Amino acid sequence: MYFQAFFIFSLIFISSSEAAVLDFCVGDLNLPDGPGGYACKKPSKVTADDFVFSGLATPVKLNPIIKAGVTPAFASQFPGVNGLGISMARLDLAIGGVIPMHTHPGGSEVLYVVQGNICAGFVSSSDNKVFFKTLKPGDIMVFPQGLLHFQINSGKTPALAIISLSSPTPGLQITDFALFANDLPTEIVAATTFLDAATIKKLKGVLGGTN
Amino acid sequence: MYFQAFFIFSLIFISSSEAAVLDFCVGDLNLPDGPGGYACKKPSKVTADDFVFSGLATPVKLNPIIKAGVTPAFASQFPGVNGLGISMARLDLAIGGVIPMHTHPGGSEVLYVVQGNICAGFVSSSDNKVFFKTLKPGDIMVFPQGLLHFQINSGKTPALAIISLSSPTPGLQITDFALFANDLPTEIVAATTFLDAATIKKLKGVLGGTN
Amino acid sequence: MYFQAFFIFSLIFISSSEAAVLDFCVGDLNLPDGPGGYACKKPSKVTADDFVFSGLATPVKLNPIIKAGVTPAFASQFPGVNGLGISMARLDLAIGGVIPMHTHPGGSEVLYVVQGNICAGFVSSSDNKVFFKTLKPGDIMVFPQGLLHFQINSGKTPALAIISLSSPTPGLQITDFALFANDLPTEIVAATTFLDAATIKKLKGVLGGTN
Amino acid sequence: MYFQAFFIFSLIFISSSEAAVLDFCVGDLNLPDGPGGYACKKPSKVTADDFVFSGLATPVKLNPIIKAGVTPAFASQFPGVNGLGISMARLDLAIGGVIPMHTHPGGSEVLYVVQGNICAGFVSSSDNKVFFKTLKPGDIMVFPQGLLHFQINSGKTPALAIISLSSPTPGLQITDFALFANDLPTEIVAATTFLDAATIKKLKGVLGGTN
Amino acid sequence: MYFQAFFIFSLIFISSSEAAVLDFCVGDLNLPDGPGGYACKKPSKVTADDFVFSGLATPVKLNPIIKAGVTPAFASQFPGVNGLGISMARLDLAIGGVIPMHTHPGGSEVLYVVQGNICAGFVSSSDNKVFFKTLKPGDIMVFPQGLLHFQINSGKTPALAIISLSSPTPGLQITDFALFANDLPTEIVAATTFLDAATIKKLKGVLGGTN
Amino acid sequence: MYFQAFFIFSLIFISSSEAAVLDFCVGDLNLPDGPGGYACKKPSKVTADDFVFSGLATPVKLNPIIKAGVTPAFASQFPGVNGLGISMARLDLAIGGVIPMHTHPGGSEVLYVVQGNICAGFVSSSDNKVFFKTLKPGDIMVFPQGLLHFQINSGKTPALAIISLSSPTPGLQITDFALFANDLPTEIVAATTFLDAATIKKLKGVLGGTN
Repeated sequence: MYFQAFFIFSLIFISSSEAAVLDFCVGDLNLPDGPGGYACKKPSKVTADDFVFSGLATPVKLNPIIKAGVTPAFASQFPGVNGLGISMARLDLAIGGVIPMHTHPGGSEVLYVVQGNICAGFVSSSDNKVFFKTLKPGDIMVFPQGLLHFQINSGKTPALAIISLSSPTPGLQITDFALFANDLPTEIVAATTFLDAATIKKLKGVLGGTN
Repeated sequence: MYFQAFFIFSLIFISSSEAAVLDFCVGDLNLPDGPGGYACKKPSKVTADDFVFSGLATPVKLNPIIKAGVTPAFASQFPGVNGLGISMARLDLAIGGVIPMHTHPGGSEVLYVVQGNICAGFVSSSDNKVFFKTLKPGDIMVFPQGLLHFQINSGKTPALAIISLSSPTPGLQITDFALFANDLPTEIVAATTFLDAATIKKLKGVLGGTN
Repeated sequence: MYFQAFFIFSLIFISSSEAAVLDFCVGDLNLPDGPGGYACKKPSKVTADDFVFSGLATPVKLNPIIKAGVTPAFASQFPGVNGLGISMARLDLAIGGVIPMHTHPGGSEVLYVVQGNICAGFVSSSDNKVFFKTLKPGDIMVFPQGLLHFQINSGKTPALAIISLSSPTPGLQITDFALFANDLPTEIVAATTFLDAATIKKLKGVLGGTN
Repeated sequence: MYFQAFFIFSLIFISSSEAAVLDFCVGDLNLPDGPGGYACKKPSKVTADDFVFSGLATPVKLNPIIKAGVTPAFASQFPGVNGLGISMARLDLAIGGVIPMHTHPGGSEVLYVVQGNICAGFVSSSDNKVFFKTLKPGDIMVFPQGLLHFQINSGKTPALAIISLSSPTPGLQITDFALFANDLPTEIVAATTFLDAATIKKLKGVLGGTN
Repeated sequence: MYFQAFFIFSLIFISSSEAAVLDFCVGDLNLPDGPGGYACKKPSKVTADDFVFSGLATPVKLNPIIKAGVTPAFASQFPGVNGLGISMARLDLAIGGVIPMHTHPGGSEVLYVVQGNICAGFVSSSDNKVFFKTLKPGDIMVFPQGLLHFQINSGKTPALAIISLSSPTPGLQITDFALFANDLPTEIVAATTFLDAATIKKLKGVLGGTN
Repeated sequence: MYFQAFFIFSLIFISSSEAAVLDFCVGDLNLPDGPGGYACKKPSKVTADDFVFSGLATPVKLNPIIKAGVTPAFASQFPGVNGLGISMARLDLAIGGVIPMHTHPGGSEVLYVVQGNICAGFVSSSDNKVFFKTLKPGDIMVFPQGLLHFQINSGKTPALAIISLSSPTPGLQITDFALFANDLPTEIVAATTFLDAATIKKLKGVLGGTN
């Protein structure tokens, strides 16, 4: 008899679960999003698969120039992290590979070296001081939010790293792409970078920019 | 001449750097801490080594009962993440190893399987629904903040996982330890868990609890 | 004449009020929610009743086993607190009543004893230290976010307490329900709690769990 | 043997507890504070008493003019809530008692009526709309952050309410005190409130203001 | 050949941009809003014009009684700031002009004097202490969140100031409007402000209030 | 008699003001700082001058190469904004002046044009799209957190702008300075920017870099 009552008690606690803003908010990419992230998928449609992502198990095809690739598991790719303040990505660097200077406008990063040797560093904003070091497998390094940083395969074997970021939507702004892979007029790029027009036009050509 | 002036301009921007609350706040564990974390190490004493941690390169000695071990890189172990909203840890599970039911009171977790197979899951609070799945190398899974979750080596080889958490001080509360590894009187444990006194006293014995 | 102008001035300030994201965001439970809570009810439809809730005036029917009941006024029950960082609930404990070990994954709690004597406590995560004390009417106690805690009627009369939580959606995860009131296989519960199968199956029976 | 090992495992987890910024940060009022609150008391000196406050068990002596009193349990009075995003206070209103128009600059408020009838309300900022209602025992009402609000004993018996606020340091700015209980020159008060000098000087006299 | 590959690499990074919650969230005022602000306009429809606002280039028509005007560029007027933690407004004060006592419930303010002399100040909540000073062109002053403050043209020429606030929806509650420009019954205003009924009715008449 | 009592009532409220973490936290640059900002100056030593800053009234001496200057009023220069989520700065651009490509790692920016014409823009991270426009006096433009942006005097007169940022410590990272004004080895700069060694060494020479 008591057991039956207990079971009912349990039901009472869950009666409003369909509407509840509780525990998690798996992103529904078909609804309008807001400043805090995507709207939530209905709880009744959420399954364990929403919290698991296999897209980092294999690398993207590496880019032949930088000999490297980035595979993100941000909220857009992995809606299970929506609203939870965290995300991941995979870095693959072939021998000689480089992740060029970039920032994550919305989050700090911690990098874990799975294999290979990686020379990684960042530049502080207050005095342009550079902090860099060569990392071995198992080492981790933190890159504070918004600061320019880079990773270079400094070893003789391919390198693999897993990074985690303190936001489900940290963003990724690769400086060269931001400067040269768009239609920002060459004279504006020149004025704001001190580079000469010839250098800019060459890089625009490489990266698909115009103007 | 202009070059010289430019150099001076550069110096102007960095003149207040010693006092600046900028970019990062490497924790100084000898100063009093506050609700937001540790006080900052003086910027002039910060080096690249403050942002790198090698403590995850090797596992802690595994505990023979759970056949598993957790190696944290939280702000207490890795003061470079202080104030940056993120941390990491390493999980080692021997064959048959288990990370028992636990919560992180202060953060969400993303787990990346480096090697082995891991059955991992969490329990939602709104309706006690369980979300669990067996993960393969390269899979990631997210565990929302504060919810009970677990990891079990479900394969035939040792397993290794890297987890990242959305706080430099996420905490780790293993339920069995919280209930049985202290001096909370047996009658209080019994009243608040529905377990009988004999079971409680046995677990207290195993886990080092008293009363 | 000036008075008239002033009145117009007043109207200017309110002209965009229908669209404004200002002051409050009473939850509309029929719209999709997001990581920060429910979407807002249209301001023009909001009345004083949206900010008042009478559901804590009377207790829920007590559960006969724990001889206690919890009546929440979270955002799901009281949409007026949506987005405001706070909520309330009512605890009723008959003589011998107990609120079992539980956590609020999303918020800290302050408890105010209205009547009766309550033995309440929580377990810290860093060293499993227990902080507990018997509270008298008028006493308040704080339970930090995400930590296991409990309340026991330790007096000879019924007890009533009001709790407030630092989130409109703090969640409530009762450990026994999370472990035994669902379909999580017995062998997984055993592996992750150190309890034996017989104990688990008995508790699953009591709490409505299967497998 | 295994039991012994398990006990050691437990110790490993707690080894850094003295320094840990974990779980809670009981305020140490003798140390410098920061934007997030007080610095933390050393964990080794924290006891259960730090999390319990008995100051709300009895009212402050009521003020004879407003026939009311406010007893705060903010971080300054109750350092256990420091850093936890919540606090409490007690309101006592004799027959005819009033808590005058005021704001809490740093937090939203939920009020629970313990006894008596209270007419309570707030004014929205977007269109100066007033939301007010007479509350009975057990009713709760929410007052959004920073908005002017008031409470009046509208019944024929003394009233008692418990309020909770979404910050350990919500502040309390009673409009009349802010305008008249200081040395702000009468002409500035007149210019910024449209009140005449005579009214201002009378209220300054009542409330202890000068100039 | 490599250049072509690089261009493709660039495209890979942008493939999910339509759905991305990245970088910004220009408010769409036609969609339901949430606690964090307006829902986002589709990225594909966002142009440079969404980030520029010309509404502060000219003042609103000044109110003849206060001889002043406030022109806001909050999220409702300038949806480009939605979700970005900041907004602006323009203050115009004719000779003798005054911005009456008011608060911003949701944000702190910094004021920059473009022209004229402005006597500005605020009242602290903890002890009703007033901090005020006469500002000259180029001076800036900060007003902490939620505290009563004012600005008076103390010079012999018109004054212009630009203010910035730490929220896209800081709100603006002018105390006199909140008290007298609505239907809050005179007896409630009297009870909660210590003003007499005649004074209240006069101000209600001026400001358009009733009851 | 009642007046006297009221005055006492007033004193009660202020009795704990010395210790209070209330209203504001003027930074004390001599104490250790934390992740949330500087420690607070003792309230008893705070005066109106702490909330006023005159450093933006006059420009810094312009740098002859960029023909521009930035005068910050961040927490390091203006400790009154410490902990308040906002700061300001002044931009001076002579004819032909340029603020080069830069980011603020810790905050969004709103710019107000006081005089002159300014061509300003930013680059989004998701698709490298550029949003730029020529601004006239009175126009405002918002630059989302962490994104690369620039300002160019596009008129025939000197230009002056006031910017506000959504953090007291937003940081300022000028890309060219971050890349070339330090000792980061030329080969690392080359590998991470695609620039050739000659260009890098030239810019290092201009900006004071070595290696």
